[in-house]
Amino acid sequence: MQAEIITIGDEILIGQIIDTNSAFISKELNKIGISVYQITSIQDDKKHILKALAEAEENADIIILTGGLGPTKDDITKHTLANYFNDELVMNENILKHIKNIFARMNFPFTDSDVQQAMLPKKSTVLENKIGTAAGMWFDKNGKVFISLPGVPAEMKGLMQDKVSPKLQNSYHLPYIVHKTVQTYGMNESNVAKRIENWEKELPDFIKLAFLPSYAKLRLRLSAKGDNKEFLEQSIDIEIEKLQQIIGDIIVGLQENEVIEVIINKKMTLNNLTLSTAESCTGGNIAKLITSIPGASNFFKGSIVAYSAKIKEDLLGISIKTIQKYSVVSEQVVKEMALNCKKLFKTDYAIATTGNAGPTTDKTDKTVGVVFIAIATPDDVIIKEFNFGQPREKVILRSSSSALEMLKKEIDKNNKNSL
Amino acid sequence: MQAEIITIGDEILIGQIIDTNSAFISKELNKIGISVYQITSIQDDKKHILKALAEAEENADIIILTGGLGPTKDDITKHTLANYFNDELVMNENILKHIKNIFARMNFPFTDSDVQQAMLPKKSTVLENKIGTAAGMWFDKNGKVFISLPGVPAEMKGLMQDKVSPKLQNSYHLPYIVHKTVQTYGMNESNVAKRIENWEKELPDFIKLAFLPSYAKLRLRLSAKGDNKEFLEQSIDIEIEKLQQIIGDIIVGLQENEVIEVIINKKMTLNNLTLSTAESCTGGNIAKLITSIPGASNFFKGSIVAYSAKIKEDLLGISIKTIQKYSVVSEQVVKEMALNCKKLFKTDYAIATTGNAGPTTDKTDKTVGVVFIAIATPDDVIIKEFNFGQPREKVILRSSSSALEMLKKEIDKNNKNSL
Repeated sequence: MQAEIITIGDEILIGQIIDTNSAFISKELNKIGISVYQITSIQDDKKHILKALAEAEENADIIILTGGLGPTKDDITKHTLANYFNDELVMNENILKHIKNIFARMNFPFTDSDVQQAMLPKKSTVLENKIGTAAGMWFDKNGKVFISLPGVPAEMKGLMQDKVSPKLQNSYHLPYIVHKTVQTYGMNESNVAKRIENWEKELPDFIKLAFLPSYAKLRLRLSAKGDNKEFLEQSIDIEIEKLQQIIGDIIVGLQENEVIEVIINKKMTLNNLTLSTAESCTGGNIAKLITSIPGASNFFKGSIVAYSAKIKEDLLGISIKTIQKYSVVSEQVVKEMALNCKKLFKTDYAIATTGNAGPTTDKTDKTVGVVFIAIATPDDVIIKEFNFGQPREKVILRSSSSALEMLKKEIDKNNKNSL
Repeated sequence: MQAEIITIGDEILIGQIIDTNSAFISKELNKIGISVYQITSIQDDKKHILKALAEAEENADIIILTGGLGPTKDDITKHTLANYFNDELVMNENILKHIKNIFARMNFPFTDSDVQQAMLPKKSTVLENKIGTAAGMWFDKNGKVFISLPGVPAEMKGLMQDKVSPKLQNSYHLPYIVHKTVQTYGMNESNVAKRIENWEKELPDFIKLAFLPSYAKLRLRLSAKGDNKEFLEQSIDIEIEKLQQIIGDIIVGLQENEVIEVIINKKMTLNNLTLSTAESCTGGNIAKLITSIPGASNFFKGSIVAYSAKIKEDLLGISIKTIQKYSVVSEQVVKEMALNCKKLFKTDYAIATTGNAGPTTDKTDKTVGVVFIAIATPDDVIIKEFNFGQPREKVILRSSSSALEMLKKEIDKNNKNSL
């Protein structure tokens, strides 16, 4: 079963927004055994939408559209779909009532164009949007399915999870798709490839390998598709087992697509630990990553973002002498930051970062991109120096993920409860 | 001049990564007068890449590809391009030297597959990638241009800005594309549309209007394309002037695509002001947004992320009585947080947030989604209560942008130097 995703909106094509909807939909479809053949982003233009629909109908069995369902003139998806299916719009009283309720709750006056949102194609199955006024639509045509969803991410997500995925699972006999990702750290793509060359050659045909380099690490993704989920999982696990023998020294994680902040959340909670951060060059990004995951308040106590030497002195108690002697970007300063942070927040672990994210060197004597990271553990402190180069964005991202990877290693070392 | 962007990589189609490259390339192309007709994301599959190339050649004048240029087996873009252009790969000595240098600097052993990265299509103009080993390639074919770039964002960005954009500007006589965006706040799409209905009807044909609703606000984007940049800008400015008369009460910003953290950065620096934050429900996200912009250290002193009541008491000096009497999510607590934060960091302004991001209510008595935000100014403190509903991600994003919008209003009120 192949799907195509069509995202509609000029704002995507001028780069005003990043299309995050496609990744979410792709992930949801993969979970229920549907592969995505192509993602196509197009303009709010009737001819272009019709062309994309026709092409997608050639290539895919399931076509999911997002965007263009709002109440204003530039929202033309609904009319274009009615046109494509030789359909007409009719009033849907249930949806009208739902829209009126939303307006009453928000205390917004109800306009004519809001009534238009309840006019929906006669041939479609309407998918009620719990949190917004733009309903989803489901069309069947010659064994193929077309689904139109709003472009606002929260509304699209709700409809995908509550309505679209279950209805697709009921409509088809779907295979399983299993992906597992091995995260490696500290070695580049070509060298990892060379080390696992023989293993790769002997992979069974139904298991596909992909190399995913990114700022902070190289991930190896193994994918398999078939009817027997257990068999697929076991087969992949056997291959990962073999990988462990070959490159166990650089493997840092095995979780399937799980981001490091989720892993930290689970490990901290499981072992009943607490955490705080003292951030300079990461500017609060580590705290932000940790608190983006529900349940963070169970173990995360807080952070001090110390963006000047004076604040490092006043709030983190770093002695001005240490800063003057060793520079604000130094092993000595990051060590004191971590230890004092742990003490201030009364936590089991503390992360500290100091460095120069650039693009200018500010008032430090250190090269742009140089970062010191410290992890204070219940009875030790581990310090590492990095050079992440440029640009600024990369320095912040790599510092944050390196810090979380270092923390993970320390937790694993000190605690028996593992995932 | 129309462009199509083709991003290659299974990781996009299974939703493992979000494609941010397309938005960056689209924005760069728009700046130099090139419209993007379509963005197509496809699998690492030879047949699929060839099909996408042929289709793009039909629709567009400039085709930009990203991804699949690495040293491993799943990287097939280069070979597929050579195939498409009936070309062969030849060793490029300059690139080989460049790759060897990178490996020497990183202290990585040099493998056979790394040598392969210097084998490039004979007919292509090679674009040297300063920070990586995968070179870009530029092909000319019957007046159309095909450009292949690496998928790693920092490498793609460097090549786009240093090589591709200048070379495109030299190759074509390009028109100007002007976009300006008006940000509104506090009124929904259909009601804004109704208020500006007559204005919209009378817009000149060459100006296009788009409504862009998002979590935190509704943006109105005006776009125009033509040979006379000044005329386009003036025409749009005249229309924005008229808009000011009609909906001035809900307009919060006029900057062209400029994000609020950049605006804050400029206003703070221009007026020689300082800032700190005390964050509870935003978990460091406001500090992270502020410090993502270069030059933040000129005005931003730091943040205290206080993720428990105890830390609010210990580090921010909020009296436990206030917390017990009014709850940790209250006007009284957020007010003290802002005032004490300003004092601790000795700044002119301070932002404070407290609320419940969900999904569970934790230990507070407040509904999930309720957030209090305070802005301490040199001689006042402004407090607002919000209900951002769910999900968690939305609460954090809307709280952060609302806080920065509130801050911006206060700076504008108190300072003469405006942008």
